[in-house]
Amino acid sequence: MTYKLAIDAMGGDNAPRSIIDGIKMSLEMQANLEFHVYGDVAQLTELENLPQVVLHATSEIIDFHDEPVKAIRKKKDSSMVRALKAVKDGEADAVLSAGNTGAFLAGGMFIVGRLRKIERPALMSTLPTADGAGFDMLDLGANAENKAEHLRDYAILGSFYAEKVRGVKNPRVALLSNGAEESKGSQMILDAHKLLSALTEINFIGNIESRDILTGAADVVVADGFTGNAVLKAIEGTASVLMHQIKDGILNGSVLTKLGGALVKGELGKLRTAMSTDSAGGALLAGVKAPVVKAHGNSSPEAIAASIQQIHKILESRMVAALTEAFDHE
Amino acid sequence: MTYKLAIDAMGGDNAPRSIIDGIKMSLEMQANLEFHVYGDVAQLTELENLPQVVLHATSEIIDFHDEPVKAIRKKKDSSMVRALKAVKDGEADAVLSAGNTGAFLAGGMFIVGRLRKIERPALMSTLPTADGAGFDMLDLGANAENKAEHLRDYAILGSFYAEKVRGVKNPRVALLSNGAEESKGSQMILDAHKLLSALTEINFIGNIESRDILTGAADVVVADGFTGNAVLKAIEGTASVLMHQIKDGILNGSVLTKLGGALVKGELGKLRTAMSTDSAGGALLAGVKAPVVKAHGNSSPEAIAASIQQIHKILESRMVAALTEAFDHE
Repeated sequence: MTYKLAIDAMGGDNAPRSIIDGIKMSLEMQANLEFHVYGDVAQLTELENLPQVVLHATSEIIDFHDEPVKAIRKKKDSSMVRALKAVKDGEADAVLSAGNTGAFLAGGMFIVGRLRKIERPALMSTLPTADGAGFDMLDLGANAENKAEHLRDYAILGSFYAEKVRGVKNPRVALLSNGAEESKGSQMILDAHKLLSALTEINFIGNIESRDILTGAADVVVADGFTGNAVLKAIEGTASVLMHQIKDGILNGSVLTKLGGALVKGELGKLRTAMSTDSAGGALLAGVKAPVVKAHGNSSPEAIAASIQQIHKILESRMVAALTEAFDHE
Repeated sequence: MTYKLAIDAMGGDNAPRSIIDGIKMSLEMQANLEFHVYGDVAQLTELENLPQVVLHATSEIIDFHDEPVKAIRKKKDSSMVRALKAVKDGEADAVLSAGNTGAFLAGGMFIVGRLRKIERPALMSTLPTADGAGFDMLDLGANAENKAEHLRDYAILGSFYAEKVRGVKNPRVALLSNGAEESKGSQMILDAHKLLSALTEINFIGNIESRDILTGAADVVVADGFTGNAVLKAIEGTASVLMHQIKDGILNGSVLTKLGGALVKGELGKLRTAMSTDSAGGALLAGVKAPVVKAHGNSSPEAIAASIQQIHKILESRMVAALTEAFDHE
């Protein structure tokens, strides 16, 4: 079966360069993907004659300064809106962008559309763990506020993804709280704990603290969007500060320290790769009618290729069909 | 002026060893502190004849398995409750424990007591930043849920502490949210933003994301207890995983990598020290009638000494008098 992937070629800090190279890297690997690329065709000539690629000329670009909802509404001929629209119109099966996050999420919700029974779609990523297995976390900030019922949906969505796309058997689903005991948390989290405990279709293992998520104690971590966003950014900020501190300490150190730094450089590089989220693909807007994947704004060609591979896996997994069955009936 | 400090000698993983050594280390440095030490006197003989120390025999211990509120109510002759009681009864000016956090916080609230106008005291720590200056963050988890009005109190409490105890001039106070723009956040955070903006007595600089707190962008970070706790534990968890990964990578590396590791060991050690919260003292229960300081459960003697020094600074700063004036009138 061939799948059609709509790609916003003009979104992100390195567009369209990274997107072009990411697509080229993916062609052979993803032989049953057809790439529908939306953007300024004058800048996309390298893709022109490739058999798996169809170019679609667009005249506008949504950039990082645009106010999300307004941009989606007004810039109808932007590469992002046209790519989203292709999914809505059945011309593509999934959509990828590295552009304005707020605009792309809004477009995912309003153009691609929610699954009927999902009130609040969530942003989900596979984050790295010390043991290399990784875990899926949602909501990472699509919502500034959530109800307990939303978290129940996220538990199911996350469990589906971990099982069908990442191949985790009987994924362990945990609820982010301020203590491992079930008595811990705000009223909303206490209510969510009850709802998750009552679900028979997932393997709910109880509360988890943010201290323990990177050790691989759970395969899926469910959080409200405000807390999930704060935890994700705290992890990113801490990792970034520590890596910089190590680098600075070594560069400003003695000759022997510098020599030592040169010798451990490979290990630090490996660590940076292991702790990077790039290799696991982009962030998925979970709970909409088709795979809507947001790559990092500063994605490298490799990161774009990883997101394409992730989308391919999602499409092959038939996750969307299963979710439609679970969440899109009357 | 001489101050009296009540110390729970039996709380924490390394009690009473760390407490005894921490006190001994502090004697000369804090010449105008009188140490009132509560615990099993048979284990405290080393402190017996020291001129600045008064031992108080207690017969019970609150440990980590005890249910906090129940323990505080039932174990009346525990070292922790007796130390807290000393403050309530005017026999001590401040209290320190490395024991059961929940019990000590409950005791701080119910035995020492809240300042009249503070509805919900908060847990505050000075956390490390890349530039070495550090920042104060609260609430780190005394509350599982907060109202906007609590966050207004925390802004004032944190600003007082940064200015009077840490000596920061006109401290920059920021509100933790899921975006720097004032339009970002849950309804509660939006309300808190308005309340903080209206305060004339603090230097409110707007919202901050958890990604930016470790870079020194603010001197005080105000958060609700649920999010603050999650962010603190995410920082701790990430730092711990990264340091372990680096160590493992080096130990399992080639001979040259191991050599490099030996050469950068000093730098990594410095980093560990810089990123440790130990040197800044313990966590303060902000908003109660006297300094109530919780040292880490696994505190070293140095960490206990740092907490004693912190309490000494708080007492010398006359912060409590200023807070009483601001928050304890009718």
